[in-house]
Amino acid sequence: MPAPPVGVVGLGQLGGSLAAALVAGGRPVQGWDVDPGARDAAAARGVQITRELSGVVVLAVPLPAMAGALDDLAIAPDATVTDLGSVKRPVLESVGRALGGRYVGGHPMCGTERSGHTAVDPGLFAGARWALCLEPDTELPRWLRVAEVALAAGAEVVPVTAEEHDDAVAAISHVPHLLAAALAAAAAEAGPLALALAAGSFRDGTRVIGSDPAFVRAMVEGNAGPTAGALARVQEQLTRPWAELLADGHAVATRQQGRRPVRVPLERAALLALGRSGGAVTRRLAAFVAGHIPEDIPDDEVPDPA
Amino acid sequence: MPAPPVGVVGLGQLGGSLAAALVAGGRPVQGWDVDPGARDAAAARGVQITRELSGVVVLAVPLPAMAGALDDLAIAPDATVTDLGSVKRPVLESVGRALGGRYVGGHPMCGTERSGHTAVDPGLFAGARWALCLEPDTELPRWLRVAEVALAAGAEVVPVTAEEHDDAVAAISHVPHLLAAALAAAAAEAGPLALALAAGSFRDGTRVIGSDPAFVRAMVEGNAGPTAGALARVQEQLTRPWAELLADGHAVATRQQGRRPVRVPLERAALLALGRSGGAVTRRLAAFVAGHIPEDIPDDEVPDPA
Repeated sequence: MPAPPVGVVGLGQLGGSLAAALVAGGRPVQGWDVDPGARDAAAARGVQITRELSGVVVLAVPLPAMAGALDDLAIAPDATVTDLGSVKRPVLESVGRALGGRYVGGHPMCGTERSGHTAVDPGLFAGARWALCLEPDTELPRWLRVAEVALAAGAEVVPVTAEEHDDAVAAISHVPHLLAAALAAAAAEAGPLALALAAGSFRDGTRVIGSDPAFVRAMVEGNAGPTAGALARVQEQLTRPWAELLADGHAVATRQQGRRPVRVPLERAALLALGRSGGAVTRRLAAFVAGHIPEDIPDDEVPDPA
Repeated sequence: MPAPPVGVVGLGQLGGSLAAALVAGGRPVQGWDVDPGARDAAAARGVQITRELSGVVVLAVPLPAMAGALDDLAIAPDATVTDLGSVKRPVLESVGRALGGRYVGGHPMCGTERSGHTAVDPGLFAGARWALCLEPDTELPRWLRVAEVALAAGAEVVPVTAEEHDDAVAAISHVPHLLAAALAAAAAEAGPLALALAAGSFRDGTRVIGSDPAFVRAMVEGNAGPTAGALARVQEQLTRPWAELLADGHAVATRQQGRRPVRVPLERAALLALGRSGGAVTRRLAAFVAGHIPEDIPDDEVPDPA
């Protein structure tokens, strides 16, 4: 069985980079974008521009555009639809509700503060973790088809539920955006001297809000509950004695973790347990999925607790 | 009048890089470090290793070692002593009290999460802002001598008081360290899945606490009052509506500010006003200081408010 075709809706930084990565791997990719400039740039990279998409259809549009992303497109009735949105419960409730078992939510943990088709990079996904949702009604063969696309782009696949995903990214992505904004706004309040002295630690701490604030707003507001909870946990940390807090934060930021291969049965509970343990399905799986669906995943990996 | 000799006490990342930058500019540099490895590395770069230092003596040791940095060294009686410590009031009260008008506090806004003589980089100061303290009793000719050294290393000099400096760095350096630690510790609390999904925004937001936690602790505890105040201002920002906060933070993080040359009389109040406005004394001043002290600084620069 050949790998299914891939259709990418939205050819900005994420969608354009995914299309470029797959084209670079010799795979036929179709795509569409409402912006003619993005369509032309993708066409120049070898993407077939069309509104008729089939196989694995990837919605790579900003969150506010997600619910209407398929309007005016002709999607094959048996297509599997996935997305790259940075929150998963709202997309599951909008796009997922309409598509039922054909929808598999996804979120590659990459991208930069840049956006649009001029920020396309075929290497964007190399080594990145790509969260892929396994809900109770997700059809496993469709999940595997999307996983294969993520692996083909160079990413590793982390099996999650939408709820687990949204809680996790609140802590490691959405709260960092709010902290960065608060840090920058407070520094501006401190005055021009403070901003003139701002160097490495300030630039690192605020880089993430160089992103389009409309995108960031949609992200944190689309995940308001988990983000508020994660922010409260950061504020609780800030009440600890500084010496203790700094030692713990240093240990987390500099931890070195080995990895070891494990054998995980290809079923939902086991895959989700792999994700919860910090593990991921690695690229070596791809050949199996493209050919047939094996009983076990032979070489996914989890962090070594030793 | 030739540029005065420079003696560097502590040849780790900052001191070793300063010595290397000056040597690269053809200037004789003396230096000392309690660690024979650091001495050997500096000697190999052309630093004359000696305990007898004169001219501008730069204390480039960690904050806890600052008060005893001159023990066992022979410092010329007319030497000007400066330091590179990341807080200025405590050093002013310890080193400064003993030295009186011969002490000029300094703090170059550079350095990385690495430390030690293996992290030496002669380009470390290129383009960096270097805060230099002008207290009521600071002797201006000594301040200018230290400024000339900072400029010779490639930095720009920001005139400040120790108090202004400590308030400013609380907002743009010390609080970012605490936020990074709290972010990392809270993410670890969220579990292995969250850490496995951690990508760019988390790495940027926590990079700064890769630094030795003992150094970071000395820094924030040595500036506890201003840091607590700046942290409270960040927490106040975090109570704002997210959309507003993100828009403001984005505007600060992405601001583009032009610069224009201004003429500033060489006297304390005018220099401090330059610093407060976000301005800096730039390298073009160096030739004047090495030769003679001009009445006006002709080409320092302030940000263009337009």
